[in-house]
Amino acid sequence: MEFYYYTLLAGVIAIIYALFAAYITLKKDEGNKKMQEIANAIKAGSKAYLNRQLKTIAIFAVILAILFLFLPDGYEITIAFLTGAIASYLTAYLGMNVAVRANVRTAKIAEKGTNAAFKTAIIGGSVTGFAAVGFGLIGLSLLIMYLTISKVEILIGFGFGASLVSLFARVGGGIYTKAADVGADLVGKTELNLPEDDPRNPAVIADNVGDNVGDCAGMSADVFESYAVTLVAALLIAYAYGISPTSTINFAYPLYVAAIGVISSLLALLFINVKGENATLAIYKGIGSAVIIAAVLDFTLTWYLSLPLAYFYSVLSGLILAILLFWITDYYTGSGKKAVVKVADAAKGGGGTDVIMGLAVGLRTTWFPAVIIAIAIFVSYISAGLYGIGIAAAGMLSLTATILTIDSFGPITDNAGGIAEMAGLQEDVRKVTDKLDAIGNTTKATTKGFAIGGAALSATALFVAFAQAVGLSSIDALNSIVTIGIFIGAMMPFIFSSFLMEAVGKAANLMVEEVRRQVKTIKGLLQGKAKPDYARAVDIATVNALKSLVIPELIAILTPIAVGLILGREALGGLLVGMIPSSFMLALFMANSGATMDNAKKYIEAGNFGGKGSDAHKAAVIGDTVGDPLKDTAGPALNSMIKVVSTISILLAPLFIAYTLL
Amino acid sequence: MEFYYYTLLAGVIAIIYALFAAYITLKKDEGNKKMQEIANAIKAGSKAYLNRQLKTIAIFAVILAILFLFLPDGYEITIAFLTGAIASYLTAYLGMNVAVRANVRTAKIAEKGTNAAFKTAIIGGSVTGFAAVGFGLIGLSLLIMYLTISKVEILIGFGFGASLVSLFARVGGGIYTKAADVGADLVGKTELNLPEDDPRNPAVIADNVGDNVGDCAGMSADVFESYAVTLVAALLIAYAYGISPTSTINFAYPLYVAAIGVISSLLALLFINVKGENATLAIYKGIGSAVIIAAVLDFTLTWYLSLPLAYFYSVLSGLILAILLFWITDYYTGSGKKAVVKVADAAKGGGGTDVIMGLAVGLRTTWFPAVIIAIAIFVSYISAGLYGIGIAAAGMLSLTATILTIDSFGPITDNAGGIAEMAGLQEDVRKVTDKLDAIGNTTKATTKGFAIGGAALSATALFVAFAQAVGLSSIDALNSIVTIGIFIGAMMPFIFSSFLMEAVGKAANLMVEEVRRQVKTIKGLLQGKAKPDYARAVDIATVNALKSLVIPELIAILTPIAVGLILGREALGGLLVGMIPSSFMLALFMANSGATMDNAKKYIEAGNFGGKGSDAHKAAVIGDTVGDPLKDTAGPALNSMIKVVSTISILLAPLFIAYTLL
Repeated sequence: MEFYYYTLLAGVIAIIYALFAAYITLKKDEGNKKMQEIANAIKAGSKAYLNRQLKTIAIFAVILAILFLFLPDGYEITIAFLTGAIASYLTAYLGMNVAVRANVRTAKIAEKGTNAAFKTAIIGGSVTGFAAVGFGLIGLSLLIMYLTISKVEILIGFGFGASLVSLFARVGGGIYTKAADVGADLVGKTELNLPEDDPRNPAVIADNVGDNVGDCAGMSADVFESYAVTLVAALLIAYAYGISPTSTINFAYPLYVAAIGVISSLLALLFINVKGENATLAIYKGIGSAVIIAAVLDFTLTWYLSLPLAYFYSVLSGLILAILLFWITDYYTGSGKKAVVKVADAAKGGGGTDVIMGLAVGLRTTWFPAVIIAIAIFVSYISAGLYGIGIAAAGMLSLTATILTIDSFGPITDNAGGIAEMAGLQEDVRKVTDKLDAIGNTTKATTKGFAIGGAALSATALFVAFAQAVGLSSIDALNSIVTIGIFIGAMMPFIFSSFLMEAVGKAANLMVEEVRRQVKTIKGLLQGKAKPDYARAVDIATVNALKSLVIPELIAILTPIAVGLILGREALGGLLVGMIPSSFMLALFMANSGATMDNAKKYIEAGNFGGKGSDAHKAAVIGDTVGDPLKDTAGPALNSMIKVVSTISILLAPLFIAYTLL
Repeated sequence: MEFYYYTLLAGVIAIIYALFAAYITLKKDEGNKKMQEIANAIKAGSKAYLNRQLKTIAIFAVILAILFLFLPDGYEITIAFLTGAIASYLTAYLGMNVAVRANVRTAKIAEKGTNAAFKTAIIGGSVTGFAAVGFGLIGLSLLIMYLTISKVEILIGFGFGASLVSLFARVGGGIYTKAADVGADLVGKTELNLPEDDPRNPAVIADNVGDNVGDCAGMSADVFESYAVTLVAALLIAYAYGISPTSTINFAYPLYVAAIGVISSLLALLFINVKGENATLAIYKGIGSAVIIAAVLDFTLTWYLSLPLAYFYSVLSGLILAILLFWITDYYTGSGKKAVVKVADAAKGGGGTDVIMGLAVGLRTTWFPAVIIAIAIFVSYISAGLYGIGIAAAGMLSLTATILTIDSFGPITDNAGGIAEMAGLQEDVRKVTDKLDAIGNTTKATTKGFAIGGAALSATALFVAFAQAVGLSSIDALNSIVTIGIFIGAMMPFIFSSFLMEAVGKAANLMVEEVRRQVKTIKGLLQGKAKPDYARAVDIATVNALKSLVIPELIAILTPIAVGLILGREALGGLLVGMIPSSFMLALFMANSGATMDNAKKYIEAGNFGGKGSDAHKAAVIGDTVGDPLKDTAGPALNSMIKVVSTISILLAPLFIAYTLL
């Protein structure tokens, strides 16, 4: 029992820090009336979305919770499930509520220069980061101590709760943010020639809300999920190996690695700062210091507890994987990089060649992540067997607080820029917010690489836990029932993302029509004499995001259940085998194609190949539009999908063992 | 021995028919001087490309042949390898040489109406179809009788020969055709406002050459390869099960199925005709009658030979798979279908939303093929074990002659339209060729569905043969060395197609520059007073296609060798497990996205959503440009890639057993 006091303590420390950071943020000056007015509109829209999304999730959650009661240990599973779901939503809620307040404060303090604004945004973002690890560690520690000490399998309920929330938050947030963004750009920039974040654009508030519900709440739910399910998977694998939760520290090792992550992430905060304009360097310093501190502490812990050093090697391979994923994403998609310039150059031939080249770059970016994740899996496996894979994933995800801090920095600065623009702040303030916004774009892209890699690694650990849960000691690809599963699994990410792309396309079109309607019917709108009806645009994005959720969610949840019940656990194992790598590649392809085309557009806007307004720029804008749902909707949502499929497969394992049609 | 006289005879019948069809075609009127002049330019360009491509292939083939001599049974393997390569090239050579003569004859006979022109194009196309099955059956029958009767493993050399040629022909032809097409359109249609196939466009001949080297020669090599490797895989699996090539008819069964395919395809020719304008119906009649006749004959044969009826069920599942793949491709990408209209509708929002919706449709098209191929594999497996998968693939590929006939019809009618346009033939003739061209577009899209499905099924059969060749009775996805292979395998299609997309983008840009240069420097060009330098454009496409070949080819050939030698046969098995479904989905996504965006453009051109010249049309043209390399370069090339990786893995099996680093 006492093993878990320390991990509980680490969780409490993280929450205390998060509350402290929230307090510091809220104390800052929130600017003049106009700024507050705009910020309040964003705040209200974001909150309204999160509340309505909660209702949709609640329906699913209640139905599932009731069904779970019929499982063996149903009562405990339901408690674990609801704990996981609530922890995830609390994280998103707390994080986003601070983010929508940090944005205006960042805009205000930008008067004092880049450094002050940078710090404000980072501290605001760190609330999400530390809330995630705090709620995760507290939830898991309490569950182990008071509920599952004798039935560890129940913990998967916690993972599935996190997965369910993540599925909704990622998909809904992703559709919302891009429907608003694409819709706002299509009419605003192209038809009406308005600049980004112009207050006369009726969709501008919806666009800023989208940053919060997508990049902040959606991303935090995704990474929280990876964090939760990775730790659960590692614990389940350990348990299956006969490591007891009460008698040996071995079992708690993954949680200790996570606890160390809290410490290293706290210390790493000291190293995240921006000097000059090198955004990438600021990120590297943050991640780099977190990795180095974690590695040193993990080594010390392993040695101090006299555990096999092989455990440490597994952790280390996860940590190194994380930093290499950062590097490669930046290498291909970072602003001004070779691949980005190539895409910008192709824009000279028009929108078609821009997209062709953008897709080519996205496809290219898969090779290195595939190779290094394979190496990480292999190294951890030969170090500590299948358990090693779980520990490696725990090592990688122990960086969660740092990653989410850096990531949430993005929507805060993006919003700050929007508020500065809409409130008509001075030129030099807007220069500062623009600079931060550019940094935020880089951090969003690189943390996405981490989220995709983290999802793939934790899904691989879940796959191992699944095999143990359903009692399979091998999953043989030469068995045709497994082959069927593999084909279906490899297909799932494609059909899933198809619905998301379509949802964005449709919702963006509705947004376009609404903007056109307002421009036509509201007199004096374009002259800045009348205010647009922001709320209508916000409502359209909200309603359509929530409506488009349902089918992809059902596909993700029902397919593994159907395969498990009809074709059996071996086919379901095959499904996971086919799904995880296929989804990993597709997500990388989509996310990085989008990021490259986005930065190619910015490269041209910076004055290259004809600059703003040139034909090349118009072509690059088309590429950016295509890239938007690829990188912010479909690509990231795949992370949630593969984890929800994996956790539900484990959760319902008793069912698949007991009943199968074939 | 006498088992193989019949299959040899079927092959000879196919070749006799092919020569007869060639003779009929050549006897037709080749039109006036201007038409001949244009046709000769296309002919010369196509021939020049095929010859230069041959030189590149020859270098690789000779190096490999020498290396193969060091394998056990190296002498026989080398002979089999060269036989396969030569048979494939002969097919492409003969088929394309007739196609480049049938085009002008089709244009001429179009004066007499649709029916006569349709028949001419079909008969011209049937040369490729029957040459493929003829050379395939003759080559395999002779090899079995005189070389490999006691060492069946050697047959894989034949399959690899076909694979190598296919890899080059598919990739090179694909890059060529789209570099020319995209290049010609970008300047011609967009900048200069020239119609399609306008003789003043310097890239117009290259564009027409591209149809022949890509859609005709490339496609024929691809399907020939599927045909050859499927039969080889089925024979290898039978052999591994202890079925002897001399003592029992069981062994020859897949070849008999193929021989029946010759008969059913010959009879089906009688049913391929166009009445009214329903192109789809013409295709369905062709495929449908071929499937029904084959099914009846296969059943009769199985029953007559007193073989297990389970064999027939496997064959039937392959045949049904083929027709369902046709149906689903048409359902999503056929002109005027719901999905196509949806994409056209999205074009109203601009190029960005057009492409978003086109990609969404392409992603969507994966689910049904994935499910039915899984069912086909399962049905054939429970019918006749792993051998059943081989027989199912043989059943599907027994339709090769019909499919290639229908497919080669495409480039012939496409060229006929081009020649009619360039030679300034009368309005009513051009109406006929336009109608045929539209039919050709549908056939090209639907046969692509068959080619992708056939490649996936034959690769699955090869995977089974691989496991037997390297002596693995299970390939366990829980073994981390297999997991590594799976990740690398799933990544391969992405990196491979990345190079092809990039190659098209780059070569198209060079083409654009060349066209612009000619327009600037050749006086009177746009006024039709001076002739453009077609040869330069042809040369640019040729050189760049062959140059861009090398890296993707090396990736396809060296990756399995490296994985096999460094990580061992289990990792290589994992690579195949990861690669086949990932490639299947990606190929479907790419090919069908492209086809849908193409037809969405045509739907608008037919007068919908504003028609030609509208903003929606401009947007749809961008979508079409993006779709071009997706559907004609990257998508189809994946077929060749997965087969070459599979065959080389089997071919070098002795090496992987004997030497492995880990």
